[in-house]
Amino acid sequence: MSLGTAPTSTGTRGETVPTVPPADMAVDTADVNALLDRGRSLAAPVLRAAVDRLAPPMDTVSAYHFGWIDAAGNPAAGDGGKAVRPALALLSAEAAGAAPEQGVPGAVAVELVHNFSLLHDDLMDGDEQRRHRDTVWKVHGPAQAILVGDALFALANEVLLELGTAEAGRATRRLTSATRKLIDGQAQDISFEHRESVTVEECLTMEGNKTGALLACASSIGAVLGGADDRTADLLESYGHHLGLAFQAVDDLLGIWGDPGSTGKQTWSDLRQRKKSLPVVAALAADNAASRRLGELLAADAKSNDFETFSEEEFATRAALIEESGGREWTSQEARRQHAVAVEALAGVDMQEEVRAQFVALADFVVVRER
Amino acid sequence: MSLGTAPTSTGTRGETVPTVPPADMAVDTADVNALLDRGRSLAAPVLRAAVDRLAPPMDTVSAYHFGWIDAAGNPAAGDGGKAVRPALALLSAEAAGAAPEQGVPGAVAVELVHNFSLLHDDLMDGDEQRRHRDTVWKVHGPAQAILVGDALFALANEVLLELGTAEAGRATRRLTSATRKLIDGQAQDISFEHRESVTVEECLTMEGNKTGALLACASSIGAVLGGADDRTADLLESYGHHLGLAFQAVDDLLGIWGDPGSTGKQTWSDLRQRKKSLPVVAALAADNAASRRLGELLAADAKSNDFETFSEEEFATRAALIEESGGREWTSQEARRQHAVAVEALAGVDMQEEVRAQFVALADFVVVRER
Repeated sequence: MSLGTAPTSTGTRGETVPTVPPADMAVDTADVNALLDRGRSLAAPVLRAAVDRLAPPMDTVSAYHFGWIDAAGNPAAGDGGKAVRPALALLSAEAAGAAPEQGVPGAVAVELVHNFSLLHDDLMDGDEQRRHRDTVWKVHGPAQAILVGDALFALANEVLLELGTAEAGRATRRLTSATRKLIDGQAQDISFEHRESVTVEECLTMEGNKTGALLACASSIGAVLGGADDRTADLLESYGHHLGLAFQAVDDLLGIWGDPGSTGKQTWSDLRQRKKSLPVVAALAADNAASRRLGELLAADAKSNDFETFSEEEFATRAALIEESGGREWTSQEARRQHAVAVEALAGVDMQEEVRAQFVALADFVVVRER
Repeated sequence: MSLGTAPTSTGTRGETVPTVPPADMAVDTADVNALLDRGRSLAAPVLRAAVDRLAPPMDTVSAYHFGWIDAAGNPAAGDGGKAVRPALALLSAEAAGAAPEQGVPGAVAVELVHNFSLLHDDLMDGDEQRRHRDTVWKVHGPAQAILVGDALFALANEVLLELGTAEAGRATRRLTSATRKLIDGQAQDISFEHRESVTVEECLTMEGNKTGALLACASSIGAVLGGADDRTADLLESYGHHLGLAFQAVDDLLGIWGDPGSTGKQTWSDLRQRKKSLPVVAALAADNAASRRLGELLAADAKSNDFETFSEEEFATRAALIEESGGREWTSQEARRQHAVAVEALAGVDMQEEVRAQFVALADFVVVRER
């Protein structure tokens, strides 16, 4: 793998926006916000009604996870996340010439699977915080995190299959295949923790499974429910898959250089977790002095017992070496490459130009976001 | 609830067979074994092929769970369980006039869901032994137990949906609904642990969800795949549901009075786990001196710190009080009642008499088994 030339900028911690947003990619924020709001507001009541079907205490635990109530059970106006997936599902119904509403069960099913994976992954990874709050296993215990995750997974299939149509069967099949990839990605992610080195290709495969697969499903499920043929659905999946890879590249940048105030995570979050994310593996794959120095430092870190007490400066040194090696710039370019491939996939789908423009606007948003 | 008359027999520990098998219920062991063998041998290769699709290390962890390899990875001829579910799934295809082979994907999907729930339940319940071996979370860690459970659940849907037929969609819908009940049952079971008392009705609801739902699905899924109408499938589900309740009543008897050599569990297994199983809740619901004495003892046990060091005699005392209260006899009668309702449901289904006789033989087997 070639990493291209070394980055020209020497960004500092203050520079929280990934180096992706170029002058030629002006995101119409109002347009994107309207899209995200529509997805959120159409999907939310159906999602809540589905979750309300769960037997106690699973309904309450879910409501906590989704941010509808706090740990004490009082109503909360939680941060439900960016809601990119529901927006995509509705848009994909429109791509098939159907009303956005036809994508709603798909949007809800995808959100349920996404949240099933968050519940289980947080427990498996021992993550204590999610969306600025304690994770479910921290608040309600590991058994509830497992059980409620299982329930949301089952509910996802139920929400689709109870439509009782052939389209719903096809949508469930695509969702199931995406879920299998999601689980493969988590298995790979866990295995990376125990390994000394991970190649850029392995990292991209893992991210394609862990992030790409479900965004691919979100981008096509509305179309499938709206009666689209397999070719159209496959192209929309391809858009979503590459969008997912762009999304994850940006996430990996934010995981190191993101502003804690926006991301809700600690400074140098991914470095603190010794995560072998894209900027790190790309930096290590480069053939230069900074890369070799970084490799030595990280190898020592892996054996260090003092890692927990590292100062801000020690992480800043590692981040600077990743940047000097070219890992930040490469990841930033990777986000742009994946963005381009995603948009290209749309070209093969016959849809209203307005719908296409909205798909592109969402893709633009994904690579320029700050959280 | 009325508990009926006190039991006349005063069984001892040596009496390991539940008091159910009556003179009028002669089980043709050869016939039942042939049925179970057929289910096992037709489903096994398809199950193994499905599990082989999992990415490493999930394939290996699954193979350990199913007993195909030991903890060191060497081939093992594990105890795959009684295989009642696969036998039912194949028989149910025949009930719809289809070849038993048509039930195979259903048998495999049900086995996958069953094993997904075992993996997760063992972790949630902290159970260290299953089928005479260490459980997956003990050998491979909690994260693998969660992850592989998730993978088996997803695989179950995949195995059905890749058939691509309308029948497969209907089968998946029934399997999903059974899985939701399974999860509800586990939620109820967990909640019972933290409660002082549980009614017989609550216990039966929990067991109907935790055991009845999946046996109901196994009993109908082959028929659905074989093209049966909803009415037929519902009646077969009813057979399976009540069979499941009979099965669980017998399991609860074996959990206290079973022979450890046959069950693979410790003596007084359910008492050691302070499980509020059917004989216990039925005994506590009775209005007699033994019942009141049992209530006092169990209330004290719940607060005791020495419970772990209880002697055989102390458990024997509790078991004798359950028996004296009528809890053993009531549970035994309950197994027979549920058996009768199960067999009655078959009457409404138009099927070959030979197939019907086999359904009945399986039901007989379930209530007279020793493990």
